[in-house]
Amino acid sequence: MLSEFDLIRRYFQRPHRPGQAVLGIGDDCALLAPRPGMQLAVSTDMLVEGRHFFAGADARQLGHKALAVNLSDLAAMGARPLAFTLSLALPAADPAWLEPFAEGLFALADAHGCELIGGDTTKGPLTISITVFGEIAPGHALRRADAQVSDDIWISGTLGDARLALAGYLNEVPLTADELATAAPRMHAPTPRVALGLALAGAPDTGETNARAAANADADSAPVRAGAAHNKRLAHAALDISDGLTGDLGHILKASNVGATLDADALPAGPALAVQPQDLRRRYTAAGGDDYELCFTAPAAHRAAIAAAGVHTGTRVTRVGTIDAAPGLRFVDAAGQPLDLNVRAWDHFSAE
Amino acid sequence: MLSEFDLIRRYFQRPHRPGQAVLGIGDDCALLAPRPGMQLAVSTDMLVEGRHFFAGADARQLGHKALAVNLSDLAAMGARPLAFTLSLALPAADPAWLEPFAEGLFALADAHGCELIGGDTTKGPLTISITVFGEIAPGHALRRADAQVSDDIWISGTLGDARLALAGYLNEVPLTADELATAAPRMHAPTPRVALGLALAGAPDTGETNARAAANADADSAPVRAGAAHNKRLAHAALDISDGLTGDLGHILKASNVGATLDADALPAGPALAVQPQDLRRRYTAAGGDDYELCFTAPAAHRAAIAAAGVHTGTRVTRVGTIDAAPGLRFVDAAGQPLDLNVRAWDHFSAE
Repeated sequence: MLSEFDLIRRYFQRPHRPGQAVLGIGDDCALLAPRPGMQLAVSTDMLVEGRHFFAGADARQLGHKALAVNLSDLAAMGARPLAFTLSLALPAADPAWLEPFAEGLFALADAHGCELIGGDTTKGPLTISITVFGEIAPGHALRRADAQVSDDIWISGTLGDARLALAGYLNEVPLTADELATAAPRMHAPTPRVALGLALAGAPDTGETNARAAANADADSAPVRAGAAHNKRLAHAALDISDGLTGDLGHILKASNVGATLDADALPAGPALAVQPQDLRRRYTAAGGDDYELCFTAPAAHRAAIAAAGVHTGTRVTRVGTIDAAPGLRFVDAAGQPLDLNVRAWDHFSAE
Repeated sequence: MLSEFDLIRRYFQRPHRPGQAVLGIGDDCALLAPRPGMQLAVSTDMLVEGRHFFAGADARQLGHKALAVNLSDLAAMGARPLAFTLSLALPAADPAWLEPFAEGLFALADAHGCELIGGDTTKGPLTISITVFGEIAPGHALRRADAQVSDDIWISGTLGDARLALAGYLNEVPLTADELATAAPRMHAPTPRVALGLALAGAPDTGETNARAAANADADSAPVRAGAAHNKRLAHAALDISDGLTGDLGHILKASNVGATLDADALPAGPALAVQPQDLRRRYTAAGGDDYELCFTAPAAHRAAIAAAGVHTGTRVTRVGTIDAAPGLRFVDAAGQPLDLNVRAWDHFSAE
């Protein structure tokens, strides 16, 4: 009989590596030892079968995505990933699901030096709840309330391919097998923009994330890391786009008490969406959902530095609009003419 | 239309009070500012409808219980509660459920000065996932691996009434309405033994938990609290009993590489269980489940101090056995004769 405890041990309990966690999985609590003076960024996201992913979704991709959407929140704050907890409700203790799920989860966790420090496993409808912890220096967080009038609005990566893949699966949009194969990874395996977020927040450059993970294994390296100088914050406000750009940017506008004008034709469409008709392109980039790209605002004086941060972190960055004093979100076309895209934010309760 | 965002705001977003959290709910991440030199204790528990509670369970009690089982993990470590995140999957956005749920949740949170700093709400089968954060001084955590041969084994409160209530609901045991009314609160509204856990870990006495919550509202009080002297740890190892004493004590024995002898007739039965036949009393105290009491080990030299901590925190404490060098868990009766109780730990997958 494979008991709950055996399950946890077999797939999720790994040798504890010295680092931020002084006590990992297996006790009533894990223990973290934050570096002196650093703040702890905390975020949580829950994925439910049939709501956030299809029944029968690939377990390896699901392991990746469940952590990726949480790391994306750390990235949007400009925090460096440290650790996470995982709560998992499963209909059955099935090794054929658990093994690839753990593989996908840990591949991404290891790439970011982010340790699984605790969890809970229970029988129930497939539900994955992750809480993630990162560190950030005081005053460096990229908050939603910090957008300034005349800031540029930027987007990382590309938008809309995740939404296009969903439309393909639901037969809302006819896609060729090749088109679906191009769009699908954006839906199933989003890339959290952690390195870009750190650069935008002015975090010290600690090199490749894998190099950091290796350095973490050496407890003596902590004082060196603690002494690294912080740079200037490049961005004012940021968030990650999970429910569609229109709705999510709306959170920044509301929190900052400002408005915005976006150039609908400047929004960077994903490779599969880019060859679709203009109307679809505009709608899915403006209000797609599941993009997990960063939307951030920054002073015009930082344009060159932001472009350099994009190059340095291997992340495309695109300027798509401007923060205005007038409340509300306005779209214009490439010629500057007003557009009504008639889009709305994704709502996990009202949408079916 | 009540959107997801409205939901979160209406029931779960409250005025942020200055304290450990420098940024509360409403951004991509919350920000915690740990006190210098303190470690952060982290635990997570997920409750699933039909598995951890009946469909249609009272929402107010559920709000209490979902946080209580997490605070119980902090108590078992000896950590002081600071903050928590809440992820909630709900079949519908129903104010008649959300309002009492939030009331039960916040009543307990406020009693422990524990702030809700983040969350996620989604449509799905009713599932409640909480991650809780506490602080603890280095070297003061009550770890499972720290039991010593010849330690006393102690239990807080009483055992078995939660299991008896379940037996009543399932008609496994015939109970009168009065008996069920006595037992049921132990199933629906467990009391996390936070103050006792702090005393056992030697945390500075900061007075009543409500007084601490009030003090937290004054940011200037932090240096005073940081300077409070720690006492000696009273206990060696501890955990909270959630799956039944036998199985949970087994985790201490395994982690500490020791064995134990328990006096089955010394196990403190809850008031409803105490009047049941001896066999039921022994089985439900030894392997009931859902007790959320502390089981801890401590040197005999600390007996008087532990009794005093029990009085000081208003928590009954009972000595029930001894840690042995010989592996395994043995039961004896009041006369010291070996007993075979034939009990096993609750398993969330194998049990139906």
